[in-house]
Amino acid sequence: MSTMEKHGSSSSSNCTETIRGLPEHGKSDLKQHVQVKNPYLQTMEEDILYHFSLSTKTHNLPEMFGDIKFVCVGGSANRMKAFAQFIHQELQLPGNPEEVKDICEGTDRYCMYKVGPVLSISHGMGVPSISIMLHELIKLLHHAHCHDVVLFRLGTSGGVGLPPGTVVITDKAVDYSFRPQFEQVVLGKVITRSTELDEGVASELLQCSLELQNVPSVIGNTMCTHDFYEGQGRLDGALCSFSHEEKLEYLRKAYEAGVRNIEMESTVFAAMCRVCGLKGMCFCDNI
Amino acid sequence: MSTMEKHGSSSSSNCTETIRGLPEHGKSDLKQHVQVKNPYLQTMEEDILYHFSLSTKTHNLPEMFGDIKFVCVGGSANRMKAFAQFIHQELQLPGNPEEVKDICEGTDRYCMYKVGPVLSISHGMGVPSISIMLHELIKLLHHAHCHDVVLFRLGTSGGVGLPPGTVVITDKAVDYSFRPQFEQVVLGKVITRSTELDEGVASELLQCSLELQNVPSVIGNTMCTHDFYEGQGRLDGALCSFSHEEKLEYLRKAYEAGVRNIEMESTVFAAMCRVCGLKGMCFCDNI
Repeated sequence: MSTMEKHGSSSSSNCTETIRGLPEHGKSDLKQHVQVKNPYLQTMEEDILYHFSLSTKTHNLPEMFGDIKFVCVGGSANRMKAFAQFIHQELQLPGNPEEVKDICEGTDRYCMYKVGPVLSISHGMGVPSISIMLHELIKLLHHAHCHDVVLFRLGTSGGVGLPPGTVVITDKAVDYSFRPQFEQVVLGKVITRSTELDEGVASELLQCSLELQNVPSVIGNTMCTHDFYEGQGRLDGALCSFSHEEKLEYLRKAYEAGVRNIEMESTVFAAMCRVCGLKGMCFCDNI
Repeated sequence: MSTMEKHGSSSSSNCTETIRGLPEHGKSDLKQHVQVKNPYLQTMEEDILYHFSLSTKTHNLPEMFGDIKFVCVGGSANRMKAFAQFIHQELQLPGNPEEVKDICEGTDRYCMYKVGPVLSISHGMGVPSISIMLHELIKLLHHAHCHDVVLFRLGTSGGVGLPPGTVVITDKAVDYSFRPQFEQVVLGKVITRSTELDEGVASELLQCSLELQNVPSVIGNTMCTHDFYEGQGRLDGALCSFSHEEKLEYLRKAYEAGVRNIEMESTVFAAMCRVCGLKGMCFCDNI
């Protein structure tokens, strides 16, 4: 399904330079365009990206977004603004980082900032929320004729058997039964999509983290749940029907299945990246 | 499960007065307190409502929220602020409606406004997002010793066989197979919760709408999906594997099953209201 997996991944040992100079992206003559999997789109006169408050008729998407190479997504609007400001400084772009402008200011569903070749977008909490954003992001990148784009999900998650502060780089995104799959309902029928992320990128990202000070990182499986309390075994929700021991037993099983952190978006993120030929990676700071 | 269902519902023919003067609420000696279903909560020294940026130690919840009788929730932060301002005017409260203050300003996960006995809260998009909010809201109402509280979900939804602008008052919240149930994963096991809303409140709300000008309203089932594009049969997502005819066939089946609108939060809203003995109602304006 994912043609991107056939391509080798970049292996620069200097991550900052990789982002600054884009040494690996755009070199090949075989540009990897973002694929939509919808035959109806090409017949539409206008495509409205409702939740971004953008449209192919009212906005020149190739001009606005054609140079995008990196898309970073995370749950919180404030954090994704702060991240955009950080990248603005890191890339030494002209202008005041404090003045980065929300491209989606016409709506409060998501916020979006563009800093050079990097797009920073918030996606809210949970699979349905990030799923809407991903549909519209993938269409945006397609309409803008972007190629060789890498998607990063930057998250906060709960660690499993790890000290707080450890970054988990996702090997496989798994469901509540530790299976690397995402169940998508299409017209009332459940279909299953693979959630395996691009091979090699996890170890590439781990290599980057080793070059940074004080960023303990591991590669592991990431469990994606559909709620924060009962689904993740928390004892402090409004509802809790299990014992402390049952919680520990479930987390022990998760650990044995290779799970090192739990969050709420990774399976659909991985599944949609695969289907649309996007190189995706997911890493979370554990609390 | 829902003890609230044993109580009769108010049947005032003047809805504005019902809200303004609270003639039906608080009259009975049998106060209906908000129930949490978690034995661990009473043993906790502090309960942090993470996603509201509130806590039982740092905030006096009974003082802040003890008089709440109506909680109105909706997806968009901007709309829930506008709604709070509208209620502020309707209730003729002192002060400037423009200056309503976000109680959750310490976080950007949700926003929350209190206007008299009405709480207006945003919940983002999708079941996981509203589910986190509901866990913390129910704990907040419990810690604040609130009683006889009614929850309203005010939404935007896609109509099924109805003219745009029609308000659908939810009779039953149903899943993608039109079943009035919500599947909740607890420690890796799927449990099923009923999503039937309080009997009688739908017709009570319909009665209210009949007294308003230009608010065409119907009672119907509301289908809750976990995504906006493939799950709701939209032809304009990044992924679409079905034909226009298959889409229409699915929507026809939904209509025959009593579905009159589709949105993304109603099943968990109804399920949690039932379990916690809260009177909940859900109505959406269709686009």
